Amino acid sequence: MSVSEPVAVLLLSCRDRPGLVSRISHFIFERGGNILDLDEHVDTAENMFFIRVAWSIGSASIPAEELSEAFRPLAKEFGAGWKIMIGNGNMRAALFVSRYDHCLQDILWRHSIGELALDIPLIVSNHPDLEPLAERYGIPYHHFPVTAATKTGVEQRELGLLEHHDIDTVVLARYMQVLTPRFVERFPSRIINIHHSFLPAFIGGNPYRQAFERGVKIIGATSHYVTEELDQGPIIEQDIVRISHKDTLLDLVRKGRDLERLVLARAVRLHSEHRILVNGKKTVVFD
Amino acid sequence: MSVSEPVAVLLLSCRDRPGLVSRISHFIFERGGNILDLDEHVDTAENMFFIRVAWSIGSASIPAEELSEAFRPLAKEFGAGWKIMIGNGNMRAALFVSRYDHCLQDILWRHSIGELALDIPLIVSNHPDLEPLAERYGIPYHHFPVTAATKTGVEQRELGLLEHHDIDTVVLARYMQVLTPRFVERFPSRIINIHHSFLPAFIGGNPYRQAFERGVKIIGATSHYVTEELDQGPIIEQDIVRISHKDTLLDLVRKGRDLERLVLARAVRLHSEHRILVNGKKTVVFD
Amino acid sequence: MSVSEPVAVLLLSCRDRPGLVSRISHFIFERGGNILDLDEHVDTAENMFFIRVAWSIGSASIPAEELSEAFRPLAKEFGAGWKIMIGNGNMRAALFVSRYDHCLQDILWRHSIGELALDIPLIVSNHPDLEPLAERYGIPYHHFPVTAATKTGVEQRELGLLEHHDIDTVVLARYMQVLTPRFVERFPSRIINIHHSFLPAFIGGNPYRQAFERGVKIIGATSHYVTEELDQGPIIEQDIVRISHKDTLLDLVRKGRDLERLVLARAVRLHSEHRILVNGKKTVVFD
Amino acid sequence: MSVSEPVAVLLLSCRDRPGLVSRISHFIFERGGNILDLDEHVDTAENMFFIRVAWSIGSASIPAEELSEAFRPLAKEFGAGWKIMIGNGNMRAALFVSRYDHCLQDILWRHSIGELALDIPLIVSNHPDLEPLAERYGIPYHHFPVTAATKTGVEQRELGLLEHHDIDTVVLARYMQVLTPRFVERFPSRIINIHHSFLPAFIGGNPYRQAFERGVKIIGATSHYVTEELDQGPIIEQDIVRISHKDTLLDLVRKGRDLERLVLARAVRLHSEHRILVNGKKTVVFD
Repeated sequence: MSVSEPVAVLLLSCRDRPGLVSRISHFIFERGGNILDLDEHVDTAENMFFIRVAWSIGSASIPAEELSEAFRPLAKEFGAGWKIMIGNGNMRAALFVSRYDHCLQDILWRHSIGELALDIPLIVSNHPDLEPLAERYGIPYHHFPVTAATKTGVEQRELGLLEHHDIDTVVLARYMQVLTPRFVERFPSRIINIHHSFLPAFIGGNPYRQAFERGVKIIGATSHYVTEELDQGPIIEQDIVRISHKDTLLDLVRKGRDLERLVLARAVRLHSEHRILVNGKKTVVFD
Repeated sequence: MSVSEPVAVLLLSCRDRPGLVSRISHFIFERGGNILDLDEHVDTAENMFFIRVAWSIGSASIPAEELSEAFRPLAKEFGAGWKIMIGNGNMRAALFVSRYDHCLQDILWRHSIGELALDIPLIVSNHPDLEPLAERYGIPYHHFPVTAATKTGVEQRELGLLEHHDIDTVVLARYMQVLTPRFVERFPSRIINIHHSFLPAFIGGNPYRQAFERGVKIIGATSHYVTEELDQGPIIEQDIVRISHKDTLLDLVRKGRDLERLVLARAVRLHSEHRILVNGKKTVVFD
Repeated sequence: MSVSEPVAVLLLSCRDRPGLVSRISHFIFERGGNILDLDEHVDTAENMFFIRVAWSIGSASIPAEELSEAFRPLAKEFGAGWKIMIGNGNMRAALFVSRYDHCLQDILWRHSIGELALDIPLIVSNHPDLEPLAERYGIPYHHFPVTAATKTGVEQRELGLLEHHDIDTVVLARYMQVLTPRFVERFPSRIINIHHSFLPAFIGGNPYRQAFERGVKIIGATSHYVTEELDQGPIIEQDIVRISHKDTLLDLVRKGRDLERLVLARAVRLHSEHRILVNGKKTVVFD
Repeated sequence: MSVSEPVAVLLLSCRDRPGLVSRISHFIFERGGNILDLDEHVDTAENMFFIRVAWSIGSASIPAEELSEAFRPLAKEFGAGWKIMIGNGNMRAALFVSRYDHCLQDILWRHSIGELALDIPLIVSNHPDLEPLAERYGIPYHHFPVTAATKTGVEQRELGLLEHHDIDTVVLARYMQVLTPRFVERFPSRIINIHHSFLPAFIGGNPYRQAFERGVKIIGATSHYVTEELDQGPIIEQDIVRISHKDTLLDLVRKGRDLERLVLARAVRLHSEHRILVNGKKTVVFD
């Protein structure tokens, strides 16, 4: 949007009932706001209401904290999960990587040209390999070697680091470690993973090899929120590419790299623009 | 949606200003409605506001006419173009065809299995060829041979027929005649055409031959509203398919047939569900 | 191709070794043939050779039987699986259906306009519902009610019918019965099924419901050869369509219908043009 | 391919006549070669023959020069355009850029991980902006400021530089200068451009603005060989992405960046693997 005025975004879900849109839009109107983009969805089977509203705050704007404060009684009345963001307050994300560079490379480049509304205060890795890439973009790189024996302790230190940096979201950019439930529960619907298959096909290890051996004609990549169950979290975004009998396993890996970085970048973008609400095991994506 | 209650849909556009969503949603709430699906868009460059709201009318529902009547003052105040539809009142569409059967076949079949919220009281053609297909689906077929000399008179009779049948929308399902401005102006943003190219590439005649000779690697189809300028109307929907050096001109025609019928069917569906608003030379499509 | 001369097609696979293309192309050249289209693939991991050659037979052409006879010694030397087809000898296919009409409708329409190089001498069904559709296209419809108790006997009679009609290929156009191994082994790599999911995701029953509940953002359809293991046969063709949180289960079914008929039609076309070779659990598709 | 033996590739086109495949494959067989991948196409309308053959040379291999020397009489007899490449002899490419970094970034990264069989001895630019990026990948960067007055002289110097570095192919990775005919004719079918539209739609300047104003629902990118006519050269590869009324002009530019780099990378890959033959104003792409 080319509007130069500050923009606020409300993301909210609650049980459905008549009058929700009316109350919310009236709240905005009363404070001099002008709605720029509103997307609403009712899951009639679950009787759940989901909304994303973006509005220009206008000259009579009030600070973000006060806006949230003012909205709190309404949200309480609705029994809603919600947040209000003011445009220039970027989400703070930590990137977790292992050895593959394609996803990290892509996110850092997009970030550098202003494509992603994210602050990236740090990168965490269980390997030292990608430190030079992090340095090139001037982002601190924290190397935590992990073994089965040290895993719990390492995660503890990582959590401390994330807290210290006031991290909101963790992006697993081909991070090859399974996070423990304790870690996951600290970031509910705020850990984004990229799985290199068209989930739920080829869950688990070596999905390209599985796809190659099954002889599929299309491969995919899936970005999802991480939950305690491996590869079972709510799906944010998927995409695919055609393959043929001519493609070797290496060709699948090569084609898949392009998919992975595009799908992860889209998911991160949607998340950072507050366009995703979780609905049980699924997502509502207002794109 | 599986809701069995009657649903109303408002489709509206006007100059943007604060409070529009609030006023509209309050109007619905006051009358006991519960919003099921709301999609809103502001074109900040043009300062235009677009909205589609679907709501369940509830037990305290009032007749469609009264709902429209009740809304009229608000719309007038907004200076809006608008309409309100009650769910079970189907749009009445006439299909215009020539000799190709694939688009007609597809629309009639979809209609027969209840995919399209349309009544199709008649089919009009400048050729007799597709009458058996029309008969199979039990739809009256009107054959109007057209020559340059008779064109004006024929259109006059066709317009009479459309008026007689209270036709709202005309679907050109590969109708190979250019309509006169006089005809077009009678159905503003209510004549849907399918052009067998990825517009604006290959405007005019023989687009598959043009595509074949240019050596493109992808062909397309475009559904748009008809305006006075040939192939220049607001685009509703487009799609594409890959081709290669192996494809002959006949292969393009064959692959294009599938595209044409899918793209036209999607456009007709979007139109019949009141999901399209025209914004100058473009469309806003709430899908 | 616009060539009016008769065209022969050789489809062959064998263990790889030097000189195969040279021997085969020399065989064609010796008999006055001119190669129009040659596609070859070597699976270096499995050391297998696959080829499809189409050539114009020319004026000095010999009958199809003699061509096959002449090629036999070469094929024997190679230890090859192979066949030679002369252009105007259509494959004979039986369509098996249950109650859904979309795939049958699509194949019969394509067949009627000459898109598919198939003869369709009969349609077999375990339900009477689609007989009127078959009649419209003038194709005999055989209704065999099936119960668990009668299944073996019914299949026996069906096999007799297929043999009587000299059927080469069976197309399961949403046939909702699982064929017994005895039936399957009679048509190795010659029974084509359409499964309404992106295999191997959502194997088995109700794949749209499974997809809906998992919250995927893309659904697919898969056409494959039938083997004894359910939904495990070599995949011929797949395609996908995007869905969103707005799509209900019925929307998935609707969008899936379009996918299913397109994917099945492509698979049938590839098979009828002798473009598919089976390589273990996979296919080589020369499209 | 995982074969470790050296591989040779023949790329050839000539007027069609019987016996071409036989003669070529026999030539390979005689020298102990084993064909791994053969793709052939006959344009029956133009009576032209196109072939790409890749074969493992085997232990009795002869040097690349001798292979070409040995093939020369055959090619002469056919009146063919042709070349033979031995696997480990990379194509030498110069990248031309201006200020946009996304295509350069993508090619250099792919090159760095071994995705592209290219040597890139130098980068040429009319702006200094991307020199740091070139340095990061250790590739010499030559900055030639260009004005209308100096253009001819600058191109002269660039041509000298390309000759000095024995450059085979020029990749215009969003190079914002039109090359003169004199430059173009020095690299026939060896200058690859990326145009940020779905050609032939939106030829010339500002294609994203043109697309935005026309209200298309899909945008594209096109990679083509450069000829004297602007944006008219043979198309190598195209791809598209969906857009909607929500997308601003900046969104089109953003989505287009991903398209441009993917389409250009694919075209460069196809070219570097000797998979493209030019057929008049079109290409034959053996992918």
